Amino acid sequence: MKKNIDSNIKTIVSALKTLREQKPLVVNISNYVAMNNTANALLALGASPIMAHSRDEMAEMLSFSGALVVNIGTLDSLWIPRMLFAVEQANIHKKTVVLDPVGCGASSLRTATSWQIAEAANKLIIRGNASEIIALAGEKGQSKGVDSLDSSEAALGAARYLRDTYQCAVVISGATDFIVTAGGQIQLNNGHAMMPYVTAMGCTLSALTGAFAAVGEETGLAAAAVLGVAGEIAAEQSKGPGSLQLNLLDALYQLDEATLIQRLKLS
Amino acid sequence: MKKNIDSNIKTIVSALKTLREQKPLVVNISNYVAMNNTANALLALGASPIMAHSRDEMAEMLSFSGALVVNIGTLDSLWIPRMLFAVEQANIHKKTVVLDPVGCGASSLRTATSWQIAEAANKLIIRGNASEIIALAGEKGQSKGVDSLDSSEAALGAARYLRDTYQCAVVISGATDFIVTAGGQIQLNNGHAMMPYVTAMGCTLSALTGAFAAVGEETGLAAAAVLGVAGEIAAEQSKGPGSLQLNLLDALYQLDEATLIQRLKLS
Amino acid sequence: MKKNIDSNIKTIVSALKTLREQKPLVVNISNYVAMNNTANALLALGASPIMAHSRDEMAEMLSFSGALVVNIGTLDSLWIPRMLFAVEQANIHKKTVVLDPVGCGASSLRTATSWQIAEAANKLIIRGNASEIIALAGEKGQSKGVDSLDSSEAALGAARYLRDTYQCAVVISGATDFIVTAGGQIQLNNGHAMMPYVTAMGCTLSALTGAFAAVGEETGLAAAAVLGVAGEIAAEQSKGPGSLQLNLLDALYQLDEATLIQRLKLS
Repeated sequence: MKKNIDSNIKTIVSALKTLREQKPLVVNISNYVAMNNTANALLALGASPIMAHSRDEMAEMLSFSGALVVNIGTLDSLWIPRMLFAVEQANIHKKTVVLDPVGCGASSLRTATSWQIAEAANKLIIRGNASEIIALAGEKGQSKGVDSLDSSEAALGAARYLRDTYQCAVVISGATDFIVTAGGQIQLNNGHAMMPYVTAMGCTLSALTGAFAAVGEETGLAAAAVLGVAGEIAAEQSKGPGSLQLNLLDALYQLDEATLIQRLKLS
Repeated sequence: MKKNIDSNIKTIVSALKTLREQKPLVVNISNYVAMNNTANALLALGASPIMAHSRDEMAEMLSFSGALVVNIGTLDSLWIPRMLFAVEQANIHKKTVVLDPVGCGASSLRTATSWQIAEAANKLIIRGNASEIIALAGEKGQSKGVDSLDSSEAALGAARYLRDTYQCAVVISGATDFIVTAGGQIQLNNGHAMMPYVTAMGCTLSALTGAFAAVGEETGLAAAAVLGVAGEIAAEQSKGPGSLQLNLLDALYQLDEATLIQRLKLS
Repeated sequence: MKKNIDSNIKTIVSALKTLREQKPLVVNISNYVAMNNTANALLALGASPIMAHSRDEMAEMLSFSGALVVNIGTLDSLWIPRMLFAVEQANIHKKTVVLDPVGCGASSLRTATSWQIAEAANKLIIRGNASEIIALAGEKGQSKGVDSLDSSEAALGAARYLRDTYQCAVVISGATDFIVTAGGQIQLNNGHAMMPYVTAMGCTLSALTGAFAAVGEETGLAAAAVLGVAGEIAAEQSKGPGSLQLNLLDALYQLDEATLIQRLKLS
């Protein structure tokens, strides 16, 4: 057990180092609310965001980028075909797709679109909160709009089902994060109770997951670890969610190996 | 007079308490500029934002949400039918519609669209600056783009006209805020001169108005009071509009009953 | 040489004074990521942003505004005709168009659209990073997504070519900024190495360029000077890009003539 934890810490630290060296390009089809946050988080950590959605440039963009993040947070009938086209292009260029099924379960449109994207992607990581993961697995959860009312633990069965169905990694984020992969599951207890009071925090995790996938860390673990640690550092310095939002970007920018190792709560 | 003021303070304090207990879901069809701000303000205060616009999910979203906020800040021919469809769904589900007529008067499109929305909504609160309220009432004001050149006082006649025409509450926001309802008018002198230097401040007030409507405070008073007080607390700690933007979210998050009562300037 | 520098400083200081007195309206067709930042930067400096894109109101908006900023950062087939229509309206109303060719060179769509806009505008300022300027001139640069891998110096030939081809001013922004006009070139060495870690910094420069054009400073010099100085003041007070983003707005708001003159590094 201890040995696994040490190996996971090594993976995280090494992925962060590689990310900052390679500064990977990450294509984001995100939602209107989160775009600014996710672009800033990618830059602060050391990656290079491309925010694009037009089918007239997606093939080019994915030919030289490292990963695709698809976030359905403000979807509609114009954006869904753009998302599916981008996934096709990611497949052609053998790039990983990170699916953020925002509000999956809150409307049939979101659930159905999430299924389409998960089905279409060849290399896939799913990152959602417990309610979204439960809904994506076709189970009945307790969502309230786009916020989760289920605990991360309650979504573990759903996550395993999704992993087996789509041959993908699944990240359940919440008070506790779980990374569910073919190799088993990893539990992460970083983060802070103030984080859900900032919008687009989950979207930010999905974007960082894409950046790490672009440098070969294909499980979502490194992103969850880095955001959890940076988030708790930021929250400790914050009077409220406004300060947290900016302190988080500072913390991502400043995060060093020693701090990361010292604060990680893996099990 | 004193008795009315006490009763209004009681209404505000009680509405804030209820909002934080119930954490109401608020559907926002907002503009590209303001979406992030309004989602964050709703979260910071304790409500739960849903940012959605697709007609393919609006009926579902409004079936379980508490109110609809329609903000025309970056409108076009694709978004206008979405807004009108959402208002229809709000009517079906007997939810209050908050109309934010951003830039009403600055273009015929904005004026005409504002009229359509106001006409369509069964339960309506209008929140605008003086120039927008004047233009919405069909009068000639002195707007300059989307910023108001008229004083709130100058819009009182227009607000009463709108109240009588649409059987709605009207909030004129500015250096002085007025809440104009069937029961008369309330004047609020909180806020700070730095607030107009932050974009989407009015949009934020409209979003909070929706959150309070979702818990039964249907006049816009509680939202104007809370944002005015939080805004002045935030501005006192700010060197400029960048700091103000984040301090405002912190202040909304931290705002307690005692501070609210102590700072309220009602008449 | 010294005489030219003094004259340029005088131009910058005078333009800032005029901008704050006149509070010009600037129409922005921007991208989803940058809209909030650019609106806030315009407000903080003292201008008045109009964020609009619908062809149903663009003629009106440009009839009473001072300039048009077109930013192709999240372009698609719906937005391109809106941009071209807005440029036509700017021409009719004899307003300057600032073109921000975000990601020019990263996709054929972006390069072709940038050419269309540059070709269409009668009064034009182009503001891009080195790679974008090089690509816009039809040369082969070293871009990586939307970030520049070329030095500003490497784009000087391209900037002169664009100036001569489109009879326009060209601003190359980067570690060193160059303003290339019919009168020659001006070099500006303000700014800070942390600025590229905040998204939409170039977009912000383009927006401010529009605000200065609206008050008659048609070269891009004043905007580059003001943002460079405010950016370095902000960065000196910032632990990371989150703080920088807000300190920049505070610095734009507080910037006074004496500080500007003292810090300017022109040559």
